Amino acid sequence: MKGEAAFVAALRHLVYDPAARGLADDCAVIELGNEALVLTHDMLVEGVHVFDGADPADIAWKLVAVNLSDLAAKGARPLGVLLGHMLGDRDDRFLAGLHDVLNHYGVPLLGGDTVAGEGRRAWGLTAVGRATHRPVPSRSGARAGDAIWVTGEIGAAMLGFEALRDKTGADSTAYRRPMARLAEGEALAPLVTAMMDVSDGLLLDSSRIAEASGVTLSLDSKAIPLATHIGRLHYALRWGDDYELLFTLPEGVKPPVKATRIGKVLEAGSTGLLLDGNEPEGELGWMHGT
Amino acid sequence: MKGEAAFVAALRHLVYDPAARGLADDCAVIELGNEALVLTHDMLVEGVHVFDGADPADIAWKLVAVNLSDLAAKGARPLGVLLGHMLGDRDDRFLAGLHDVLNHYGVPLLGGDTVAGEGRRAWGLTAVGRATHRPVPSRSGARAGDAIWVTGEIGAAMLGFEALRDKTGADSTAYRRPMARLAEGEALAPLVTAMMDVSDGLLLDSSRIAEASGVTLSLDSKAIPLATHIGRLHYALRWGDDYELLFTLPEGVKPPVKATRIGKVLEAGSTGLLLDGNEPEGELGWMHGT
Repeated sequence: MKGEAAFVAALRHLVYDPAARGLADDCAVIELGNEALVLTHDMLVEGVHVFDGADPADIAWKLVAVNLSDLAAKGARPLGVLLGHMLGDRDDRFLAGLHDVLNHYGVPLLGGDTVAGEGRRAWGLTAVGRATHRPVPSRSGARAGDAIWVTGEIGAAMLGFEALRDKTGADSTAYRRPMARLAEGEALAPLVTAMMDVSDGLLLDSSRIAEASGVTLSLDSKAIPLATHIGRLHYALRWGDDYELLFTLPEGVKPPVKATRIGKVLEAGSTGLLLDGNEPEGELGWMHGT
Repeated sequence: MKGEAAFVAALRHLVYDPAARGLADDCAVIELGNEALVLTHDMLVEGVHVFDGADPADIAWKLVAVNLSDLAAKGARPLGVLLGHMLGDRDDRFLAGLHDVLNHYGVPLLGGDTVAGEGRRAWGLTAVGRATHRPVPSRSGARAGDAIWVTGEIGAAMLGFEALRDKTGADSTAYRRPMARLAEGEALAPLVTAMMDVSDGLLLDSSRIAEASGVTLSLDSKAIPLATHIGRLHYALRWGDDYELLFTLPEGVKPPVKATRIGKVLEAGSTGLLLDGNEPEGELGWMHGT
């Protein structure tokens, strides 16, 4: 959900606390007393990240879930969230969805701000958690010889989006109400060499681990668990929003959660990412706006 | 900077962690290990909280400063901020202002999100700090017999706003680049019975301490340090954006920072706020949008 590369690159120069990993790594990790605090902030914009006219209850759910998913990838247990809410139509539905998602995860709303707005609405959410394992998992620890794993299935959010867009009546839950893999992240944190959530597409996110770790990730397309048929493979791997956990484990270590082995980490090669032995064609990530 | 009362009231029901004080109190306070963490999130919307066409460098400054001011009122030392930024024109100026304010306060940018947007832009900022004194100052501790104090002068931001609006060329710094009273807040935290920052007007914010504490605040208009002449008193007391600290001290306790005594806390009366012995006329807070 990061935008304009130049702006983000410039912002990174402002992250002048060398102990803090932010923007580059979705979450910030700061030490406080004997604890490590994990913080993340994501925004949603109407018409960009959610359909115009989407049920505000779904927007609230997604806003919370995508941030909790960032915590999950750090093995962090949520302490609470802060909400930035632009007032508008159907705020009762927003509240209903917020209630649902906070109750589902047992996460308190700690505070926030509400503002008047016009035109397209925007929401921001900050999630705060405490690390359950140190060092906190990051994208940068994958080593040659590790196995690559992913939880759940890839492509479910894409199908949900298409069901909404095309008004087919098919199930759109995976797109509207993604799940944050908090329990899985906590169970995996002591074992993984690298971990992140799949928010921008399996290929793009895999390439991010490769870049951060200085290795090549080699994926086997036939091993990747798809929520759709193989004819949709190209798009499913480039879509995002599934919020499954993508992680690397040392060879021989079995994950304590349901997950599928999808490839192997190699020494850094001419490209950071291989799919069935070749550099993937075209864009790695899919622009999945409306 | 809180909007629609009904929405906020409904949100408060979602704040189901009784240890967390949020929305009602601008900042959330959560315990983590041996530390107390203080969190706040404010949004700014173009045309609502900042002039259309305002220098984005000033927007960035204000966005950070108003959140740090919330930490100051808690005696908290900033650990960092997370930014939600809607990309748009003159982002280079935004970055310049962000650099200025973060350097000025020595506060790291920990992370955040950037999103594409259209129309009026919105920004969100979360500031995280650690409490330097426990219990963390709140609005609810003022007791009858306490003296009421305020740092700095009231009305400077109003004058700055008018200078910009009327293009008089007069100094608008106080409106564009408010200062967060972090050092003062930290020095005061061990002494105060209640504290908050003056963001929505001295009268309105005083009434909030009165309400939270179950007392009456009795202000002496002649004692209030004004940045303007006495003819502007009515508006100066109802304007906000000065981000001075308003606090109560037990009678006889001298503040360790430059501040002015402006009144006395009384047992709860028929009204929470008295100005020169009478209930103030009209609205307590000033709607200072453009």
